[in-house]
Amino acid sequence: MTVKVLADLMSQPARALVIFCRASGISHEHVPIRITAGDTKTEEYTKLNPLQKVPVIQDGDFVLTESVAIVRYLAREKAIADHWYPKDSRAQAKVDEFLEWQHLGTRAMCASYFLSRWLIPMTKRQAPNEKSVAKALKDMEVCLGQVEQVWLQGGKKKYIAGDEISVADIMACCEMEQPSMAGYDVREGRSILADYMDRVKADLNPHYDDVHQAVYKLRDKFGGTIPGIYPKPE
Amino acid sequence: MTVKVLADLMSQPARALVIFCRASGISHEHVPIRITAGDTKTEEYTKLNPLQKVPVIQDGDFVLTESVAIVRYLAREKAIADHWYPKDSRAQAKVDEFLEWQHLGTRAMCASYFLSRWLIPMTKRQAPNEKSVAKALKDMEVCLGQVEQVWLQGGKKKYIAGDEISVADIMACCEMEQPSMAGYDVREGRSILADYMDRVKADLNPHYDDVHQAVYKLRDKFGGTIPGIYPKPE
Repeated sequence: MTVKVLADLMSQPARALVIFCRASGISHEHVPIRITAGDTKTEEYTKLNPLQKVPVIQDGDFVLTESVAIVRYLAREKAIADHWYPKDSRAQAKVDEFLEWQHLGTRAMCASYFLSRWLIPMTKRQAPNEKSVAKALKDMEVCLGQVEQVWLQGGKKKYIAGDEISVADIMACCEMEQPSMAGYDVREGRSILADYMDRVKADLNPHYDDVHQAVYKLRDKFGGTIPGIYPKPE
Repeated sequence: MTVKVLADLMSQPARALVIFCRASGISHEHVPIRITAGDTKTEEYTKLNPLQKVPVIQDGDFVLTESVAIVRYLAREKAIADHWYPKDSRAQAKVDEFLEWQHLGTRAMCASYFLSRWLIPMTKRQAPNEKSVAKALKDMEVCLGQVEQVWLQGGKKKYIAGDEISVADIMACCEMEQPSMAGYDVREGRSILADYMDRVKADLNPHYDDVHQAVYKLRDKFGGTIPGIYPKPE
């Protein structure tokens, strides 16, 4: 049965879910959702997810929200290679450990920086609030350090859960791409992280680059600038 | 085999884990950890969890962090009643859905209010920052509304995952107790939530009250006040 995946590719967890489905070969149909066009506020969408967030899946008559819960459900239900989400209890727990950490780790920190440094000012047509940006930057940099030193053990680990790629790596990298649209490249000055992200990207391509097309476009077009507003025109 | 549970009962997810182990009958030893006494910063503890957070478990030679990952691991490994974390794939996915939402939902929101309204000012010996508290309060109240209207469907559902109690309810209630120490009772003016929390507490007692002893003590002693500082002495 083909799973419907309702996802806005501007959202990090939504991108992660689409890449996971493509890379693991899960039969699915991506239903494009545009948050900025109000797609998540419609009556029809709100019936699927009263919290009006992406992604959502429909597997027959079963509706499920929350990307991590979805990934686990699909790993149980669909025939995919074991390394994406291992069946061995301890190996699975080690993938889960990262998936649970990332909510208030990479997810919260990279998103906060992106929002305060670029998306909110861009939407409001005003310069970024320097104090908020400085705080978000500091928190994000601590978090990126933890990815390198704790989750990748200073480069000793090829992937978050060990020698093979898993959903933890997809989630991590999709989050860490987000600040690029705010002009911050997480790879710069972090060789362990850069090597890791290149490795994950190579494993997931062509899907990784394809799903990130809109992100790359915004990164290349704006790179954190807010035309006419920031940096202040001379 | 007895599982070692390293937990500071001032921490919401740590309380949830201890209550889960007790209520489900998992053979465990609670190793009390005091964050304020520096217990999580020792060399020995940092070896177990480089991120220096609670809780941590040791199951033989297997070490695991992150409360939600731990709960899932224990549910797989130990013989417990199915309702705590159902084996049926769709039922399990519905428990997971809440467990994933709560990180940036009840966990983030109730903790932010508690921190800005009481713990940070109490530690710094200064009055709460009114602007931060107002923002945290607003966000928490939106979140509590979502628990009532979305997760409990306006009172149609007895428990988050349906007719039986699960780990989702333990996690939810432990988070929602935290603001009581900052003088905010989430039950007040929310009859659906109050009924729900009473039901969960009754199901989990005597463990619920026992594990919350220190929380109740701080709630009764301070109730959000900071002696000599807030409210401002006349």
